[in-house]
Amino acid sequence: MSQSVKEVADALANHCRTQTEAEALNTLYHPDAVSVEAMAMPGSDGAETKGLEGIRGKHAWWDANFEVHGGAVEGPFMHGDDRFGLIFRLDATNKQTGERSNMEEIAVYHVSDGKITREEFFYTGS
Amino acid sequence: MSQSVKEVADALANHCRTQTEAEALNTLYHPDAVSVEAMAMPGSDGAETKGLEGIRGKHAWWDANFEVHGGAVEGPFMHGDDRFGLIFRLDATNKQTGERSNMEEIAVYHVSDGKITREEFFYTGS
Repeated sequence: MSQSVKEVADALANHCRTQTEAEALNTLYHPDAVSVEAMAMPGSDGAETKGLEGIRGKHAWWDANFEVHGGAVEGPFMHGDDRFGLIFRLDATNKQTGERSNMEEIAVYHVSDGKITREEFFYTGS
Repeated sequence: MSQSVKEVADALANHCRTQTEAEALNTLYHPDAVSVEAMAMPGSDGAETKGLEGIRGKHAWWDANFEVHGGAVEGPFMHGDDRFGLIFRLDATNKQTGERSNMEEIAVYHVSDGKITREEFFYTGS
């Protein structure tokens, strides 16, 4: 039997709090999951990344480019029987520029048959 | 020309911060806008409320049942060219039960042609 959306949500929040997101990708995500940024990143094809390999690449890019000093994860916040949200707060330094900043974002996750099929990131910005 | 999604988002955040949400309903929402709770409320037909009159009824219900002591609105958090999110924190007392609690929720808004057409609320909960 597949996990409920609340079980998936609690498990993902826990992985994010213990910096074990790589394990979350293996156990909680659908192989064809889609990850959608708030906007297209410079040099990318667009805002959407399709499939687990691409999402693992996004995590690797983040780890290579940012040093995280601290952070917090709030939630999960549930909506209906197929979605939940998390709030991320991060204190991180961009390794290229040396700029340290406090980042905050909302992530919304879609769940189908006990697997995360889509993640969408919402950022503050001008 | 219709307002951009960022203009709508900033305007709604400002109305929420100044407790002028009633004006936001008049100026920023589509007449057929849909409001979706995290789950169906007890005694209601379901999680969805369709149309501005129904949404005004939800606001009236809230005002009649809760006394707000303080709160904060974070955002807007933008996603693509048609959605944004806000984070609400409230310190409020349920007038019926006398119970005072800190509430936190994420709201996601869909914008089309410069008007809010859908709002979706995400709550923490068991």
